[in-house]
Amino acid sequence: MAFSSGQIVRFHDIDRAGIVYYPRFFDYIHRTFEDFCDAEVGVPHHKIVDELKIGFPVVHIESEFHHPLQHGDRITVEMTCARLGRSSMTMRYRLFRPGATEPAAEAAITTACVDIADVRPIPIPDLLRAAFQRHLAP
Amino acid sequence: MAFSSGQIVRFHDIDRAGIVYYPRFFDYIHRTFEDFCDAEVGVPHHKIVDELKIGFPVVHIESEFHHPLQHGDRITVEMTCARLGRSSMTMRYRLFRPGATEPAAEAAITTACVDIADVRPIPIPDLLRAAFQRHLAP
Amino acid sequence: MAFSSGQIVRFHDIDRAGIVYYPRFFDYIHRTFEDFCDAEVGVPHHKIVDELKIGFPVVHIESEFHHPLQHGDRITVEMTCARLGRSSMTMRYRLFRPGATEPAAEAAITTACVDIADVRPIPIPDLLRAAFQRHLAP
Amino acid sequence: MAFSSGQIVRFHDIDRAGIVYYPRFFDYIHRTFEDFCDAEVGVPHHKIVDELKIGFPVVHIESEFHHPLQHGDRITVEMTCARLGRSSMTMRYRLFRPGATEPAAEAAITTACVDIADVRPIPIPDLLRAAFQRHLAP
Repeated sequence: MAFSSGQIVRFHDIDRAGIVYYPRFFDYIHRTFEDFCDAEVGVPHHKIVDELKIGFPVVHIESEFHHPLQHGDRITVEMTCARLGRSSMTMRYRLFRPGATEPAAEAAITTACVDIADVRPIPIPDLLRAAFQRHLAP
Repeated sequence: MAFSSGQIVRFHDIDRAGIVYYPRFFDYIHRTFEDFCDAEVGVPHHKIVDELKIGFPVVHIESEFHHPLQHGDRITVEMTCARLGRSSMTMRYRLFRPGATEPAAEAAITTACVDIADVRPIPIPDLLRAAFQRHLAP
Repeated sequence: MAFSSGQIVRFHDIDRAGIVYYPRFFDYIHRTFEDFCDAEVGVPHHKIVDELKIGFPVVHIESEFHHPLQHGDRITVEMTCARLGRSSMTMRYRLFRPGATEPAAEAAITTACVDIADVRPIPIPDLLRAAFQRHLAP
Repeated sequence: MAFSSGQIVRFHDIDRAGIVYYPRFFDYIHRTFEDFCDAEVGVPHHKIVDELKIGFPVVHIESEFHHPLQHGDRITVEMTCARLGRSSMTMRYRLFRPGATEPAAEAAITTACVDIADVRPIPIPDLLRAAFQRHLAP
């Protein structure tokens, strides 16, 4: 049910403390959403912006960090849809280190669905809604 | 009571949607914490790591985004201490656009206080505790 | 003759090797150019893009790195104009650690001056040209 | 003869001008070097740092930017070794957009090979030297 994206912790994701700088977790998360658009929506993320003129500004984040990530970790990011509203949604992301059964970090990211021209909320288009629905796990 | 840090939204903080990429808010927040160490603890952040051997890994984030930030915005980040435990603390950050009375974004960031050698929780040292205490706003 | 911008090496500029990740030098450089627009052109960089509709895409870089930068370093970036053409220019940047007489790094950055609508080269507008001229050091 | 790494231009690589922020090119380049260590040296980059205690600080860059990169571009980065010295080397990188025969950008990156404990130059170890040699293209 979850959508999965494999990613690699890179040299420049590491901070002065020798572990992944926590805002980089949101880069892994954003890449996962982009990969989801490609694989599950069938429309690359840049076309969703350019052609469908849709944006997903973040309105709320709740995130927990359990274990640090290290350079070279080949992580798996799992994404499910926790809530699917008319013009907003909450996606849940869980980041796993290689072989781990418990996530290193998890986040619930709530975004609006807006017309990028005027940043007004619009209903989530059917194409996207169907893809989110297939990964719904409230 | 709040500690304040003035910052500028830079060209490279902006994402493909034309507004600040939301993980960059955590850069503004981290810079504010560094400025706080300088100004209020009296020990620069890099010396807290190098000499006191203390780190503050993030364990929990809750964050709300109300208004996008734009290139060139001269923002003010206000920081207070929302909870001061024995070896963990929650700092509250509010980011204001120029002249705004309502924050553009806010975040509660909970960090552990650890010995960087073994990442074990340690009591927050008095020097830091006193500085946090002066900005306590539960 | 050189324009100067003071900057601080931040926690998240540091990479896994414990020194500034070299592409971050270009962030310091870009901030210096933005500070120059504010202080010397009298038009903030975001207005140069939004109102004058001008962009400065980079076409060539030559850069030397002499000494690593560390977390907490309060660096000075000095900028001069090494070459001022009709619709392109080369700016020279030198980054100094506190108290240093020799630069930690230096870069010559050549940019085109373009209309952002069609990315065609345009003559550097007089307002900008005059500011660059005042810092010319071939 | 060139080593190739496929990469995707991500949402957060794009700057306020709507194209890839030029320092991000060096992220693509660094990822390529990391992929090379995995595939051609047979030792992941993080083990080269942790176990072989070797670092490659950048000492010189020369780079040309021909065409901007856009969000969603699936680029190919080609790497060859342009010069292989005793304790330094110059790698050449060329970034291609999908289907392009001319690079969008190219860079020659010269790094020292150092002992990370004291940042003293050391001879490039045979394991790495052999891999670089196989991709030598002066």
